[in-house]
Amino acid sequence: MAGIPSKIETWQMVEAGKEGHGGKLERTTIPVPELGPEDALVEVAGCGVCHTDLSYFYDGVPTVNKPPLTLGHEIAGTVVAGPSKLVGKNVIVPAVMPCHKCDICARGRGNRCLAQKMPGNSLGIYGGFSSHIPVPAGDLCVIDELKLPLSHYAVVADATTTPYQAAMRAGITKGDLVIVTGAAGGVGVYMTQVVKALGAGVVVGIDINQPKLERALNYGADYVINSKGKEFKALRAEFNEICKKAGVPGNVGWKIFECTGVTPGQEIALGLLSFIGKLIVVGFTMKPVSYAISRLMAFDAEMIGTWGCLPEHYPKVLALVQEGKVQIEPFLETKPMSQIQQVFEQQHSGLFDRRQVLEPDF
Amino acid sequence: MAGIPSKIETWQMVEAGKEGHGGKLERTTIPVPELGPEDALVEVAGCGVCHTDLSYFYDGVPTVNKPPLTLGHEIAGTVVAGPSKLVGKNVIVPAVMPCHKCDICARGRGNRCLAQKMPGNSLGIYGGFSSHIPVPAGDLCVIDELKLPLSHYAVVADATTTPYQAAMRAGITKGDLVIVTGAAGGVGVYMTQVVKALGAGVVVGIDINQPKLERALNYGADYVINSKGKEFKALRAEFNEICKKAGVPGNVGWKIFECTGVTPGQEIALGLLSFIGKLIVVGFTMKPVSYAISRLMAFDAEMIGTWGCLPEHYPKVLALVQEGKVQIEPFLETKPMSQIQQVFEQQHSGLFDRRQVLEPDF
Repeated sequence: MAGIPSKIETWQMVEAGKEGHGGKLERTTIPVPELGPEDALVEVAGCGVCHTDLSYFYDGVPTVNKPPLTLGHEIAGTVVAGPSKLVGKNVIVPAVMPCHKCDICARGRGNRCLAQKMPGNSLGIYGGFSSHIPVPAGDLCVIDELKLPLSHYAVVADATTTPYQAAMRAGITKGDLVIVTGAAGGVGVYMTQVVKALGAGVVVGIDINQPKLERALNYGADYVINSKGKEFKALRAEFNEICKKAGVPGNVGWKIFECTGVTPGQEIALGLLSFIGKLIVVGFTMKPVSYAISRLMAFDAEMIGTWGCLPEHYPKVLALVQEGKVQIEPFLETKPMSQIQQVFEQQHSGLFDRRQVLEPDF
Repeated sequence: MAGIPSKIETWQMVEAGKEGHGGKLERTTIPVPELGPEDALVEVAGCGVCHTDLSYFYDGVPTVNKPPLTLGHEIAGTVVAGPSKLVGKNVIVPAVMPCHKCDICARGRGNRCLAQKMPGNSLGIYGGFSSHIPVPAGDLCVIDELKLPLSHYAVVADATTTPYQAAMRAGITKGDLVIVTGAAGGVGVYMTQVVKALGAGVVVGIDINQPKLERALNYGADYVINSKGKEFKALRAEFNEICKKAGVPGNVGWKIFECTGVTPGQEIALGLLSFIGKLIVVGFTMKPVSYAISRLMAFDAEMIGTWGCLPEHYPKVLALVQEGKVQIEPFLETKPMSQIQQVFEQQHSGLFDRRQVLEPDF
C-alpha cells in the first residue's frame, strides 16, 4: 500500500460527446482535496468500464456535474487516508452512495436518494479512472480477504450488485420461477447467478448469442432460449416446452428480469408476463414500448423498476462472490488504464465479450 | 326472511351481444340446485350493475360460462339455506371467491385464483339478477347490524372492495401521498374515500367533471384537478401548485390509482409517476399505451395491477362503511329488477351518475 499522494493522476473527460461521437479524454493531475471527517481517499486498483460511462461519453447523456470530470463508478481499491479503522483496508466503492439524511433514505430507498453521490457523475469532479479518489467513507464495503486480484472486485460495485438489488425488489425466494432476458449480457450473466444463489427453482435465460447462452447454463441458467429471428409465438411455444419439462406452470408466478434494455427484449418480457408475475426493469433504453397496462390488472401482476443497489447489500453480494456462488472471473478482463481511449472505442463498437476493468498505470 | 323457494326466478342473458349491440335478456325460472355441505342459498336483496356486466352484454367480452347464464356479481342478501350458523344472516357475496386449494391461494393471492368462482361469469349459470343464488358459503361476509337498507350493501361486493384491495397492493400507510385519476367515476369515488380512511395524507383527485370533482372534496379528496381539455404540461403545473400549497414534494413517493380505464387517464397517471412512486392499475381497457418502461428503472418506481379483492378483506371494508368512513349512499340508487333491460341501456348510454342496484321484484 502506498501512502497519501501529493496529487491525483487522472483521465478526465474534458468534453462530453453526443450522437455517437466520442467526447475528449485528457490525462491530467488534480489536487488531493482536504478530506472531511467522514471521507476516505481510495487508491484505485481497478475501475470497470460500464455502459453508463459510454452513454456519457458518446450519447450525450448528461453527467450531473459537468465536464471536466473523471468518469468511472465501478471501483475497487485500498483506503490510504480517512477513518483509522479503514486505512489499509481493501474496499469496494458502491456505485451510488445515499445521503442517509433525506426522507427517501429514511424510507429505506437510499439507492434512489436524490442527493446521492455517484463517482464519475455526481461526486464532484472525481471518478474511478484515476490513481486515487476521495469518497464518503461510511458506505465502503471492506474486503477482508482477497480471493481474487483486488482490481477484479471492481465489477461488484455495479454489474453484480445491480442484479442483487433487482432480486431484492422482486422478492426472490426459494423455488422461484425466473426468466432473464439478456441472460448473456453484461448484467444478465450476474442476474442468472444471483437469483440461483438466492434459491430460484427454475431459471430460463433468453438471449440471441448461442455460445454465450450455452455458457449461461454453467452460470445460473437451467434452460436457455435463443430468441434470434423468432416470432413471439415460436418463442412462447419453446418456453411452454421448457415448463412442461421442468414440471412448472407456464403462466403463473414467473419473475422476469429484463436486462437487455432494448425494445425486442422488453417485448419478450412483457409478452411472457402472466398471472401474479413480476417484470423487473433492469436494462435501460429511452425508447417507449407499447403495452396494454390493464393486462397487469387482469394478471394481478407488477412491473418494477430498479435503480442501483443499497450499500447495505454490498457485503452480502461480496459474500456470494467470495463463496464462489457468483462467479466474476469468467466475465471480466483487465487492461492498463492508459488504454482507456482505445477500450472506450472498442467497447462502443461492441468488440468485447467481457467487462473491461482498467488498472491505473500512471 | 322467506324460506327455501321451489325455484329461482331470474333474468338470464340468453345471448351475449357484441360491438356495442346488446345481447338478449329473458325472464325465466331455473331449478334450485342441491346444495353441497359448503354451499349456501342466498335470497338476493340487491345486485349492482357493474361496467363488467355491460362489457359482457354489449362488447363481446366472453363470460367463462357461456350463455344462457344470469349476469350480476355485486350481491347482498340473506342466507335461506346452508350451514346453520349462516341461515338467517344478512351477507355480502364477494365478487370473486377463490378455490382456497391451489398454489396461488396458498400464496395469499386468492383474488387471482384461476379456479375462482364469480357470480354472473364462472359460477355455473348463476348470477345476481335473480331472486336467489347458490354460492360457496365460506367466503360470505356477514353484516351483523343493518345500518343501511340491505340491498345497498351490494356495492361493497365489488365497487368498494376493489379500491380496498388496490390500496393494500399499494401498501397505503399513514401520511401517504395519493393521486386518483378518475376520482369522480364509479370506482374512483370509493378509491379516494378508502385511501383517506386508511390514513393517506394528501389525496389529489383528477377527472373531467367539475361538479363531481367538487363533490369528491367531501369524499376523501383534499384537492382536485379538472383535466378536461388540458395539455399535460398545464396539468403538471396545476399539480405542482397543489404540492406547493400542501407543502409536499411533487416528484417523490406518490401513489397513483388509475381508475379511468381510458388512454388519456392512463397517460396522465404515467406522466405523474415519479421517484419511488407506484402506479396502481385499477381501471381496465384493452388499448395499449406507449411508455418508456425504463423510466420505472430511473424512478425506482412500480406499476401494479390489481384484480378483485380477497374475501378476507370484506369485513374490514364493511367496517369502514358501517363507521361512515366510506360513504356509499350518495353514490347508488335502487331500481326494481324488472327494469333491468332499461337500466342496462341507460347505463350503457352513460345516463347514470350513480351505481344502479337492482332489487328483485319477481
